[in-house]
Parts: sequence; structure tokens; C-alpha cells
Amino acid sequence: MNPTSVPAAKSVDWQQVKEWDERYVFHVLATKDEYHSLPVESAEGCYVTLADGRKIFDFANQLVCVNMGHRHPRIQAAIREATEKFGYIWEGMTTEYRSRAAKLIMEDLEVGKWAGRIRFLSTGTESVENMVLFAKLYTGRRNIVTRTHDYHGWTTTLSGANGVRGYRSSLASGEGPPVIRDVPDAPAPHYHYAPAPQCYRCPIGHTYPNCKDSKGTLACVRATEHLIRVLGPETVAGFLTEPAQGAGMIHPPKEYFPQIREMTQRLGILWLDDEVMTGFGRLGEWFGYKCYDVTPDIMAVAKGLISSALPAGGVVLSRQVAAFFDKWRFSTMSTFGSHPLAMAAICANLEAMVEENILERVRDLGAHLGAGLNELQQKHPCLGLASGRGLMWALELVRNKETREPFIGVDRYSIYAKTAETPASQIVGKVCMEEGVAVGAFLPNSIRLATAFVATKADIDLGLRALDKGLSELDKLCD
Amino acid sequence: MNPTSVPAAKSVDWQQVKEWDERYVFHVLATKDEYHSLPVESAEGCYVTLADGRKIFDFANQLVCVNMGHRHPRIQAAIREATEKFGYIWEGMTTEYRSRAAKLIMEDLEVGKWAGRIRFLSTGTESVENMVLFAKLYTGRRNIVTRTHDYHGWTTTLSGANGVRGYRSSLASGEGPPVIRDVPDAPAPHYHYAPAPQCYRCPIGHTYPNCKDSKGTLACVRATEHLIRVLGPETVAGFLTEPAQGAGMIHPPKEYFPQIREMTQRLGILWLDDEVMTGFGRLGEWFGYKCYDVTPDIMAVAKGLISSALPAGGVVLSRQVAAFFDKWRFSTMSTFGSHPLAMAAICANLEAMVEENILERVRDLGAHLGAGLNELQQKHPCLGLASGRGLMWALELVRNKETREPFIGVDRYSIYAKTAETPASQIVGKVCMEEGVAVGAFLPNSIRLATAFVATKADIDLGLRALDKGLSELDKLCD
Amino acid sequence: MNPTSVPAAKSVDWQQVKEWDERYVFHVLATKDEYHSLPVESAEGCYVTLADGRKIFDFANQLVCVNMGHRHPRIQAAIREATEKFGYIWEGMTTEYRSRAAKLIMEDLEVGKWAGRIRFLSTGTESVENMVLFAKLYTGRRNIVTRTHDYHGWTTTLSGANGVRGYRSSLASGEGPPVIRDVPDAPAPHYHYAPAPQCYRCPIGHTYPNCKDSKGTLACVRATEHLIRVLGPETVAGFLTEPAQGAGMIHPPKEYFPQIREMTQRLGILWLDDEVMTGFGRLGEWFGYKCYDVTPDIMAVAKGLISSALPAGGVVLSRQVAAFFDKWRFSTMSTFGSHPLAMAAICANLEAMVEENILERVRDLGAHLGAGLNELQQKHPCLGLASGRGLMWALELVRNKETREPFIGVDRYSIYAKTAETPASQIVGKVCMEEGVAVGAFLPNSIRLATAFVATKADIDLGLRALDKGLSELDKLCD
Amino acid sequence: MNPTSVPAAKSVDWQQVKEWDERYVFHVLATKDEYHSLPVESAEGCYVTLADGRKIFDFANQLVCVNMGHRHPRIQAAIREATEKFGYIWEGMTTEYRSRAAKLIMEDLEVGKWAGRIRFLSTGTESVENMVLFAKLYTGRRNIVTRTHDYHGWTTTLSGANGVRGYRSSLASGEGPPVIRDVPDAPAPHYHYAPAPQCYRCPIGHTYPNCKDSKGTLACVRATEHLIRVLGPETVAGFLTEPAQGAGMIHPPKEYFPQIREMTQRLGILWLDDEVMTGFGRLGEWFGYKCYDVTPDIMAVAKGLISSALPAGGVVLSRQVAAFFDKWRFSTMSTFGSHPLAMAAICANLEAMVEENILERVRDLGAHLGAGLNELQQKHPCLGLASGRGLMWALELVRNKETREPFIGVDRYSIYAKTAETPASQIVGKVCMEEGVAVGAFLPNSIRLATAFVATKADIDLGLRALDKGLSELDKLCD
Repeated sequence: MNPTSVPAAKSVDWQQVKEWDERYVFHVLATKDEYHSLPVESAEGCYVTLADGRKIFDFANQLVCVNMGHRHPRIQAAIREATEKFGYIWEGMTTEYRSRAAKLIMEDLEVGKWAGRIRFLSTGTESVENMVLFAKLYTGRRNIVTRTHDYHGWTTTLSGANGVRGYRSSLASGEGPPVIRDVPDAPAPHYHYAPAPQCYRCPIGHTYPNCKDSKGTLACVRATEHLIRVLGPETVAGFLTEPAQGAGMIHPPKEYFPQIREMTQRLGILWLDDEVMTGFGRLGEWFGYKCYDVTPDIMAVAKGLISSALPAGGVVLSRQVAAFFDKWRFSTMSTFGSHPLAMAAICANLEAMVEENILERVRDLGAHLGAGLNELQQKHPCLGLASGRGLMWALELVRNKETREPFIGVDRYSIYAKTAETPASQIVGKVCMEEGVAVGAFLPNSIRLATAFVATKADIDLGLRALDKGLSELDKLCD
Repeated sequence: MNPTSVPAAKSVDWQQVKEWDERYVFHVLATKDEYHSLPVESAEGCYVTLADGRKIFDFANQLVCVNMGHRHPRIQAAIREATEKFGYIWEGMTTEYRSRAAKLIMEDLEVGKWAGRIRFLSTGTESVENMVLFAKLYTGRRNIVTRTHDYHGWTTTLSGANGVRGYRSSLASGEGPPVIRDVPDAPAPHYHYAPAPQCYRCPIGHTYPNCKDSKGTLACVRATEHLIRVLGPETVAGFLTEPAQGAGMIHPPKEYFPQIREMTQRLGILWLDDEVMTGFGRLGEWFGYKCYDVTPDIMAVAKGLISSALPAGGVVLSRQVAAFFDKWRFSTMSTFGSHPLAMAAICANLEAMVEENILERVRDLGAHLGAGLNELQQKHPCLGLASGRGLMWALELVRNKETREPFIGVDRYSIYAKTAETPASQIVGKVCMEEGVAVGAFLPNSIRLATAFVATKADIDLGLRALDKGLSELDKLCD
Repeated sequence: MNPTSVPAAKSVDWQQVKEWDERYVFHVLATKDEYHSLPVESAEGCYVTLADGRKIFDFANQLVCVNMGHRHPRIQAAIREATEKFGYIWEGMTTEYRSRAAKLIMEDLEVGKWAGRIRFLSTGTESVENMVLFAKLYTGRRNIVTRTHDYHGWTTTLSGANGVRGYRSSLASGEGPPVIRDVPDAPAPHYHYAPAPQCYRCPIGHTYPNCKDSKGTLACVRATEHLIRVLGPETVAGFLTEPAQGAGMIHPPKEYFPQIREMTQRLGILWLDDEVMTGFGRLGEWFGYKCYDVTPDIMAVAKGLISSALPAGGVVLSRQVAAFFDKWRFSTMSTFGSHPLAMAAICANLEAMVEENILERVRDLGAHLGAGLNELQQKHPCLGLASGRGLMWALELVRNKETREPFIGVDRYSIYAKTAETPASQIVGKVCMEEGVAVGAFLPNSIRLATAFVATKADIDLGLRALDKGLSELDKLCD
Repeated sequence: MNPTSVPAAKSVDWQQVKEWDERYVFHVLATKDEYHSLPVESAEGCYVTLADGRKIFDFANQLVCVNMGHRHPRIQAAIREATEKFGYIWEGMTTEYRSRAAKLIMEDLEVGKWAGRIRFLSTGTESVENMVLFAKLYTGRRNIVTRTHDYHGWTTTLSGANGVRGYRSSLASGEGPPVIRDVPDAPAPHYHYAPAPQCYRCPIGHTYPNCKDSKGTLACVRATEHLIRVLGPETVAGFLTEPAQGAGMIHPPKEYFPQIREMTQRLGILWLDDEVMTGFGRLGEWFGYKCYDVTPDIMAVAKGLISSALPAGGVVLSRQVAAFFDKWRFSTMSTFGSHPLAMAAICANLEAMVEENILERVRDLGAHLGAGLNELQQKHPCLGLASGRGLMWALELVRNKETREPFIGVDRYSIYAKTAETPASQIVGKVCMEEGVAVGAFLPNSIRLATAFVATKADIDLGLRALDKGLSELDKLCD
């Protein structure tokens, strides 16, 4: 066998693929009985081709992560090229790829305006883990304040700390009464919850913008400061947030981050910015913080960093934080950190983003998508809110627009156990799938929408038409 | 530009590479002042070519992780092939690669004799994190018993729990008196330490094999059982070990794991087997547990799974554990888990291992290496012990073979801060490097040796000759 | 020497007393340099006689704890009587005193209407520790939700969890810039903070009663439910509160506890009621919960239980909780739990409370005190708020009644380090002391007032006159 | 009613006492069904008179805590005297009693030779809690190393950390198969277990004195140092031990504490000495540390401090530790700390101890008791070991002296659930009780013996005769 030849696609025995998958692979989100293997033949751009031949428009962009689309030619070429030079190199040595990837982020994406150094890792979870680790080492403090409805990763510590009830690496029942089996010692010690900036259903009972005090400060920012001051700023390593809550599907009001930044600086605590989902153009800016004209102390990235072409993540330190670490030896390594093939793919991904002027493209497509969603909101009784920015949007499905009553009472407190009632989002999602469009339907009353940046307006219109049908189905259940 | 063409190597501006690396990249193990960029041009088999043209025999196998060697043709071809089909697919869908990778492990490597399911992740650290998570979910218990001198990963939780003092993601000083700055809340709660099975310097004061009781039970196994029973087996999720301590560089006596397995089963706790370094042929068996004719309850893998050609790891559940999870919905995902390109590389890696009859090869090479080390031990006063199996060996450097006094008193309790005295291992390592041979010199009195399985006996002899020179240099410092 | 004779008071060498005290005793709240021994000759009713002959009206009731006054004849007689029978008996045996004490609480104080059993311990801190322990054992859950500005005890766990910043068993500086040195691993894991029901300065930005939603639910109750639901009620052992925040000096609005009780029952979590300061008549009812017509799941008591005549506390279990524990063996003891002399004193204390019709007396005195404080509030620009109930009141000192600006900006986030500015409360307290009246001045902008129940209206008027002077002094610093 | 009169004992309705006790009081160690109220009429010296008229020789000294006997005239007189002056005074003020108590300990008991300050609290558990708190504040470190089979208190933290399996405030079943229900998050974070110095059944497999290395260091001391060095001395606040394990009933070999002291000083960590049971003459010295000619860094006391006449405890700081705290404000109080009546009782207790030359008396009685136990050991096949010092002894009951096989296999790992087999200690204890002698029978194979210091040799002989009968009964079950 010539090892470089590509076997013909027709050679795949899909029945065998399903059998091995169902027999041997651990599956997420479903019990064994619920699970049915969904084999994929290939993917390109913003489309996925299933083994049964169906071609699906990926209106969730998988897990909001294939920024430049599946199999962007430049990225794939870079990976192939790197295979000619490298198998593997550990992070104690350097490669041209790593150097260039760092330079691209620091200089071309202008991260160097505030940042000093980047460390490359392999996943978003690892990058947030490392961000928290560095925050604790830098400050010598133990507490992390995070937010309800935040998601930051799946390790014992991070999943234990997630502010989305159902994303704590718990087990939920697939039959009978809804039961949950938690990791016994979660949530992780020293994580504390400030209220999410969720204006549609304010967790502290306000109505935006009436929540502002005489100085214009949002009540949720004041509540966060209150919590930090009760803990003692001297004990708080950092405030850990997502620019837009990805699993929680909440976009904050515009005043939020500028006020958070002012507050964290005034209290002398770090702002830990989890840009795993929002980084690299997703919101129409290189990073989420740019939307609010602020800069973080430490930033975690992944997904868009490499358009998920290979596993890669990174943690970026402000100049001040980096200067601190420059004086110490950090004595633990990550075997797969700065893997040369991943570094090569990052270079290609970022060069393509810059050359294809991707920010402008995302803004343009995002405006188109936003306008379409606005129309749907006017039309459908069940669509209470479409909020978003760039190519990351969230829909709130309600039984009644006036009262904002959700279809599924548990809403974001869902434990993801099987219940008698079909989640509203899955009703919509099922119709869309029949139309060849995949949307994100993890939360029971919310739809997550995203596309690769290489989508066209026509692609998006295809997605909107499917959504229109799905929402119409749900409208029937409205009051 | 034709995106598939390979740029000529000569185009690399190494000065620029070094400059960007030193300016922008976070570096491990060294302060800014100590760090000097070491650029690598390419790698192949068991050799690494530096930017300055030197070709180094990789006698550490990087981080004991490139099992089939750098750029094994079959693996590289598989990666290139996969780029033609996939960018990315999330773990809720399946690919032919994932199915096949699972089947290869379960059937061809005979893991299915005891195991029920595998979940693919992206790194060894993630795989151990997931193993611990699953152990806690399965048992509903919180405590993990691990061992002194064990290493299991670098997240806040795992690094906090590492039994190797210096691998706790701490910061150590690069000048002045040795100082350490720990993660403030490490070690992670609910981790407890049983003594390492370190016969050369028994931490509980025995001399093997006189440590056995009337039933033949090792004292370290009894001490471990004592600790577990004091904690209460009802509170202990599992006993977490490496088959051979990789960072700690300790190989246990042959009775150890059979007795550990009997004890953990009798007490009803899980045995959590971290095979990240030892899995996939490293010890001359597919997995470390095979060396002792026992099987674990959960196993974590990485490194050898994919010969580090791309980031990938996995967690393997016994049939009983898998059957438990089959009844639940696990509600957290890993974005890069079961990445299609990594799955393709795993398939190629494992198929190559099977077809190249790699176990026999490792045993043969390992016997050759062991014999060579035995000769060196006879010859050099400074070489107190050469212990190992297959292609993973550890050397103990001593000032005096009789007393077994180490050169650097802190030995495995090292915090990796700079000290006045040059570590013995670095003295040896420096000579070897001058001979074009890289050895592992992380612990102050220990040398870690490993090679890719594609090395020849001639390659190993090259390494042994360099070691001979290095040890001769150190002999001068012996009593 | 006749062991029952009382030595003449004149025999005390007060210089010697001060010297030994200053040399050998660990002192709270002050550095060595700041500390000056304040010897007390004796105490009676609501007066304390200092060694220098001054007789002080105890308008703080010491630590709000001598409910029936110093040396109530009946209590002292009971103690003396008990010395004729008992030295000590451990809690595995019973005494007539313990039986009677339990009966008095359950039947005469009508606790048995909802409660099943009481366990006697030695302090308030122990009683809350035991309450939390029992809540965790009963539910099998680990999380405790408590509140900002709550105080529940001083052990590593409880002080770590206190919601009053400065009461975390920290060290604060007595000179130079204000510095704090925390217990390194506080706050204790698994404690989470809901907002205090502090209407005067709402931590979540509302103005009572406009904070109510359409169903009349307070925003702070909704915020608490939000936090519990994010954590997962399945993980929350209980919600831990004081009926009136004693160290925090905050009295909740009347809707608060009925809504908390409804919410905790609906979510299936325990309400843990810390009545250490409020129990046994302090608020004009036998217990704080009675003020709100609700009953707790577990209650901790101390202080008023025995009028502090001896160290004693207790934890009271609802019938349902008690029935659970009846089926198990609880295998840890408290050496001094249910000490016979303390049990005798409790009997006498409670019998005296019942016979002296103390609830009516407290309500009458409380009304008198409230009226007097109301007058002072009308008169003094610096007195922003006088809130309270029964014989437990809190004054808020403000620079400006309109803006409610406090004198000392740090307010309840105080770390108790020495600062340039004298706390407003100490300015008032100093004047009062010169008038022979002691008030509670722990928080910088708050005065805590309380008296023994045996005080007369004339005693209270004496206190109010001193306060009047003290407030007049502070008025000078108002805007 | 004349409040000072003593009601006639005959007035007690014991049926009523039992009824209220069984209905209302929470009971330790037994389920509701198992519990039978055991009312006590009175106690004096080393005898307890039950309500049914039986007079029991207290050969366990209750919980090894009534050092000067029940109702020592001098102590009782002091309490009565104090009732004439004080109800209560908080620890911010001083009393003649507190000053004198501190002086007695520091000067008369010579604690001042190494110690700087004492803080008075109310129980042993509180005192150990405070000791650990101070150790963490002083060092700024989080880890505490303690030992298997140690007992240090019952709060969530301390009980979670206890090295005696069954003393973790768990619930154990009273019927059916043995089941335990643990506090869900125990053991407390940051506690780590070194092996107990239990030579009779060495947990690390040695035979004393063959466990010593070439320098004479005990293997258990080396194992402890190994654990501390793996954790990192820089992270360890202190090593927490009892001079003789009270609940664990183990007396260490003579070399143990001198070597521990040398090691802790060399590594720069505190030695935290829990003298709650051993302090104030119990071992024939004022404190346990005196038996080994070493001094601690912090010491916790209770029990003997006041002969349990009232609840009291204390924490004593070395001069160096005290000097550190002198520079800070410690901002948390204990309401019942330094209660004036307890302080008065302490003074009387200590003065009596000094005047009655109690150390000599304990040594003399201890020698008598030891000799008697030695005779019993010669005689009875079931008595494997009698170990002790002063008036604190432990008996090991074995099925076979040669093999040292215990009667109940679970031994010190007992969870205290009901099992089919009656514990050996309870077989002995039952016979003794029939003879009017109470012994300590908490562990299944161990008997704890202690008496008040006021016992006579005749009292002890009475106890030994009862033991002789009890052991004869057990002999029948020996191999």
C-alpha cells in the first residue's frame, strides 16, 4: 500500500462505522439507548456532508468554532506542508511556525498593544485552566469570581465552577423522573458567582436601563463589586468572564464591560477574559474586548485561533503580568503545547483572516443575519428576543412575548435530564434539520446561531428560511 | 500563491524566528534572562535537526512521546489524506476515523478484553482529568489516593496533586536563594499520598525484598491500604498511579501492581491507570498493566496513542464502568475531543504499530539498551542504578554507590529553582549534547532515557557512547 | 482555708491583674502596643463595675448575650446548687438538669411544635458548626448558601465563610497603611453568598419596596433563588441566615423570611436558622423565626439560652430531621456538651424567663427604646437610620441623610485595620463611655444597642441621654 | 423560695427524667431504638452514682477528663464564689480570675519557659480549631500534616480530618449490613496523613526497634518527613499530633517526639501539640511534651485545664509565635472565651494540683496501675499489650498473642456500625460494669483506662479486679 494515496470514499462501510462507534465509543449527551450514530462523510466551508449523502448547512458552526470554515485551502495546505518537516517538537524548543504564530497575534492582530506573551496549548479548556493558574500564581490569591450562566471548560475544576447548571460534567437521567448525579465535590472551591448580565430576565430583578444608579453604574456591576468586597479584593485573583456567554447564550448591555474593567482595576484584581468562543473575528472584532474598548489582564483563546482545523489554544498575558513571569522559572510543561502542525495551521488561519479582510466580512454578514432575525422576531410570537453581534446570535423562545414566559420553566437551570416535555429549542431544531440546516439547541428555550466566516448571504438566507419554518411550528404552542 | 506548495527551507530567517520567540512566547523552565531560543529545522525518525544544522539523536524521545518516531510516513500520509475530507467535526457526530481508531484499540490491541468504551480527548492531562472525573461520577466518592513522586498532569487540580514536588505548576527562582511560589490553594483537595514504590531509597525505610510480610505483601502496599482504610474505602473513588513513574523516574518491584490490584478490588475502589507515558508499546507490552498481568478500571492514554503526531488522548473505561455510564447522559463536551485529523493519525499510528510488530521490536531494542546500561553501571562509580523496561529507562547518579548518597541532596523534592551547584544530571546531559545526543535531565540526580521504536541498535549505541563520556565526567565528582 | 468563703474584694491587687493580663493573655482586636487591660471588679443586672470603681451601664449587653442580666439570682443559685451534686457528666449519660432543660425548650417555649430533638453544646460557634454538619449529613449535600454581611462563628470553616469582611479571623495592621493577613485557605469551600437584605444600602441596587416583582417577591429573595438554582438545589444542603444580622447590624424587611421559607421549601433545601444572638426573647419573641411566623429546619442557639451565665449552646432539629437521625448512630462526641452545671443554669434561666413574663417585658422596653431612638433620629443629622426590634437595635451614622453617605467609606467591608480616620462609631462610643454608658461600636458607621431584659426604662433613658451627647459630637462632622 | 437552698434529691422523678431525655434529647452513639437513658444522680471523686443507686468506679475518668475528680471541694467553692461577683464578661475586658489563671499556667506550671501567651476558649475542639487557625495565620501556609489514628475534634473541619475512621462525625447503621454515611465533603481540604507511631501493628510494616536507620531515626519519622517534603515544607503550616493518641489509644516509642521535634524545626514547620487529653498531669508530667523533653510551637488544652468542672479550653503560643501576633489585630471574638466562672474554676483546679503535689501522686498511682496491668497481661491470653503512662492506659485485646490477631478484624478502621459480632472491648466492658466499674470501650479491640488523680490504690485495685473478671470472660474466645 502506498501510504500517501487517498482511499476512495466509496470504500467506507458505513454500517461498520456505526457499529464500531455504537459499540466502542463513549458518547456525550445521550444514554446508550438514546444514542444513534450520525456518521459524517466530509465537510467543506459551512457545509457538512453526512454519510447518507445529505448536505447540511452548519448554522451552528459546529460548536461556534470553525471560523474560516471547514477545510480552508490555505490551512489544509499548511498542515500538509508541516507534515513534511515535523512530527512533533516539545515546547522547550522552538519552530518557525510557533514564532510566526506568536508574531501574527501580537503584531498583525494588534494584541501586542497590551499583551506581553502568549503560551500555546491544545484546547480551550486547557487555556482557561492555564489562565486561572497564572492568575493565582501572579496574585498569590485563591478566589476566582465568575458569573452565573458562564461556561469555562470541562475539567473537574472548571466544570465544577461553570455557572450553567447543566454543564458541570454531571450525569443526567435518560428515562424516568429527572435525576442528576453530580461530581461529588463540585463546585470547585474558591469559585464565587456574581449575577449574569442577563437583561431579558434580570437575575437581580431589574429592567434595563432603569437599573443604573445616579452615576450610570449597572446594578449587576454593583452587585459584582459588592461580592468582591465582601470576599475581600485582597483574596480575589480575578474576575472570570466570557465577552458573550456562549453556553449561556447571553449578550451583555454595552455599559457592562467598561464598568467591569474600571471596577476590577480600581479594586486591584485581574480581569480574566475567556475569548475561546469570541476570539478571532467572531463578533466582528478580533476579540470580544475590542467591542467594548477595554483590554484584559489575561486572555484565553482556542477555537477561532485555528478555526478548529487542529486542536490548539493559548493564553495571552498582559505586559505587566508577562513581566512578572519573566522573572521566574515555571516548572511544568504541556506535552502537546505548541505542537508544530498546530502552529503551522494557526499561521495559515491568521494569515487568511488578515488577507481576506475577515472583520469587515463578519460585520457585513452579521448585519445581514441580524436583519433577518429581526424580521423573524416581528413575525413570530414565539421569538422573544434575537440578540447577538457579528456571527454569534442567540434566540429566546417564549410562550408569550408580553410576559416573556419561557416554554420550559427550568430554562438555563436545566440539568439536561430527559423530561416529558420536548424542549422548545429541539422542536425548532428538528424542523430546521429536516430542511438541511443544523442549529444549536442545547438550552431548552434558546437557539444558538453561528456560521463560518466564509458563508455567503445566500447560505444565511437558506438558514433563515429553515428557522422561519421551525419557529412557525413552535408558534402553535404560544398562548 | 499555490497553497499546496512547500516553501523552501532556506527561506527561514532564523534570527527572526529567535527574536519573535524570545519576545512573544511564554517559556517554561527558564526565566527570561536564562532563556535562549533553540530553533529546530525539522525532525525525522529518532533525530532532530536544529536550525544551526546539528542533527541530534533524541535519546529522550522528546518527552517520551514520539513512539513511532518523527514523521512516520504512514501517519503523515494519513494526516494529509484527512485534510482532503475534514476540517473539524464535533464529538456528537462520528467519522470513519474515530470508529476505526476505537476498533483498533479495542480489538487489535485487545483492550476490549476488559474495556467497554473509549472517549477521545486532546492531551494526556485532559485524559487524566477525565479519568478522575469519571471515577468520581461512577463511585459518587470524592477522595483520590495517589502516590508520592507521581505525575499526572498540569491543570490546577492535577498539578496541585502531583507527587513530584517541583511539578506543581509552581514558580521557582532563577537567581538568588532558592525560592518557590506555589499556586496558593494547591494541592487540590481530596488528594492523598501513599508512598512511592521506590526501592532504591525506600520512603518508608525498608530494603527490598525484606519488606515483605509473612504473606509476601510489600510494605508500601500495606502502607497504601492503611491510608485507604483510614480515609475509609467508602470515600475513595480510586487509587491513581503510573505503571512506571515517568517524571519521578521510578520502576516498581514486580509484586507491586498485582498486590495493588488485589487490594483495590478487595476494598472496592477503582484502580486508575495513567498510561499516558507507558501506553502503546513503550514497555514492550501494549500497556503497562500487561507487564503485571492485571487490568485497570479506567485508563488514561495520550502520547503513544498517536506518537505525538497530533494532540490526542483518551480515557478507556472497563466494561463495568462503561455499562454504568451507558445509562446516563453526560452533559459536557470537549470541543477538540475526537478531532477527525487526530483520529486519522491514530489509525495510521496503530496500524503501523501492529504491522511493524512493534512489541517484539521494543523488547529487542530494550534488551540491547538494558545490556548497554548494565555495562555502564559496572564501569562508572557515579551510576548507582539503571532501571527500566522496554524503551523507558532511568539512571540514578550517586556520589557513592555504597551509601547511595545522591549528588544533589534535594533529589526528587527539588523545586527547580536555580542553585549554586549544577545538577549532576545536567553535567552528564551537557557532555551528551556536545556529542549530539539529547537525554532527559529534569531531576537533579536522574537521567531519563527513551527512544523512538524506529531507532536502530546503532542509534542506541551512539547514545550509549555519549552517555559513557558524560558519566566519566561525573565520576570525577564521586567520593 | 474554708473553701466556701468569699475572699474580700479589696484583696485584689489590680496592678498585678493588669500586669499578668498584659504579659500573658492573648488579646483580641488590638496589637500589643494598643492593648490596655480593662479590669472588671464585678457585674450585676445591666451594670458592670470596673476595677477603678466606675459603674457602667451596659447598653451593648456585652456581646448581646446576657439576656437576663448579670448574676440573675435564680441562675446563680442553680449553679451553686449543681456544684453540690456534679462535677461533670459526659453526654452519653443523662442528668435531671439536661432532661428538664430540653423539656423547657420543647414544651414551655413551644419549640416542640415544630422540633423533634435538641443537642446541647458549649458555644454558639459550636452550635452553628453542628447545625451545618447535621445539614450536610441529613441531605448528603455539600453546598451551603449564606449571605453577605452574615456572621456565624469563628472556626476555620465558619470564619472563612462569614459574610462580614472583617470577621474572618484575619489579622489587621495596627499601624502604617491598612494591611490584612488572611487565613490562607479561607473562605471555606462550598460556601456561597447571596445578597444581604440591606434595604438602607441595597447591595443589588434596589429601593424597598419598589424591589418587589409582580408577585410581591423581593429582589434579594429572587437573587438568592437564582444563585441556588445555578448551584443546583440538589447540591445545596441549606440556606444559612441570622434572623437579624448581628455583626452586620441589619434587620430585614418583613416580607423577607416568609418568602425565604417558601422558596427553600419549594426547592427542597433546609433553612438553617442561626438564633445565637436572637433566640430567647431578644426580639420580643422566643425566637427570631416567630417574628415572621415561619419555622426553620435546624436552629442553632447559645447566648440567651443561658444568659451567658456559663458556656452553653445547642442545636435544635425539626421533627423530620430528627426522625432521620433517630435511625443512625452518630459517632462523635463533645466532651463538654450538656455539662451538668450549664444544664442547671439553663433550667433556671428559662424558668425565670417564663415566670417573669419576659416577652412582654422585652416588647415594652423595646417600644420605649425604639421611641427614644426615633426622637434621636429626628434630632441628629448624623443618625440616618435606627432599626431594630425588641432589645436589639442598630444605628446607621451618615455624613448626609439625603445621600446616606457613610462617614467611613469602607463601611461593612472594613478589615478592622487602623486607619487615619477615627471611625464614626468610636467617636460616639467614646462620648458615651465618658457618660458611663457602653455601646457596641464594631462597625465603623454603626452602633449596636442592646440591654439585659432586667433593665428599667430609667436605665434605658440613661443610655439614650449618653447617646444624645455622642451623636451631637458626631453631628459636627456632617455635611 | 430561697434560691440558695438545695432541693432534696428524693424529689427527682427519674421516670420523668428518662422520658424527657429519650423524647427530646439528641443522642450520640446509638439509634433511637438502641438508646436507653442512663440517668446519673450525682458524682464525687472517682465515683458516679446512678439514679438507681448504683455507685460506679469511673475507671475511664469519663472521657479521660475529670483530672482532679468530680466535685473537688476547692473547685466547687471557687465556682460558687465567682457567682457572687460575675455573670459574664467578654474577652475584651479582664478579670482577676483570668489574669491569675494565665499566671498559674505560665509561671507555676512553667509553661512560660517556652510560651508567650495563652488564649482561653471553651472546649478542646475550639482550642484545636484555634491552634490550627493561628498556625495558618502565622505561617501563611495552608497544609496541615496530621497522623492516621489521631483525633483532634468534631467540627466539620477537624472531624473531617480525624485519623480515626469512625470519628469523622459520620452516621453509622444500627441494624442490617454495616453502612456509613459520611459528611459529604470530608475530609477537610489540606489535611494529610502521616503514619501513626503504632509499634504493636506498624502501619508501614516494621518491627520496633529494628525500624531505625543507621542514624537511629524511626521509619515512621522518616515517612513523615518524606510526606512533608513531597508536599513542600513551604506549604505546610504544621504537624498536628497528640502526645499519646487518645481515641486511637496508641503510645509512641520514646524516640518519636524528640525526632519529630528535630525534623519539624529543621524543615521550618510548626509542631502543633494537642494536649487536650494529656495536659495537666495526666501522664505524670504537666504536659505530654515534658515526657519527651521537647517543647511545641503551639499547644491546645482543655479537659485537665479545669478538670472538666466547667467548659474551658485554651491555646498556648510559643514566645516566637506570640511575638508575631502581638503586632497584629486579631479581629474575631469568642463570646464564651475566658468566661469568668470558668477562669475561677481553672485557678482553683491548678492551685489544687500544685498544692496537692499531683505529679508525684499520678506517677505513684500510675506505677501501681501499670504493675497491676502487667500482671493481668501475664495471666490473660487475650491481653496482648498494656501500654501507657501516668493515669492513661490502653489495652490491646487479641485472639492470639503470638500472631497479635485482633478479635474484630476492622480494629481501628471501625465505622461504629452495628455488626453481628460483639466487639471484644464491649464483652470485657459489660462484665466490668456488672462489677460496678466503668471502662472505656470505644474501639473494638481496645480498652481505655484512666482515673481521677484523687483515686486511691484501693480504688484502682477494685478496677483491676473487675478487669480480671472481664478478661477471663474474653479469654474463652482466644485461639
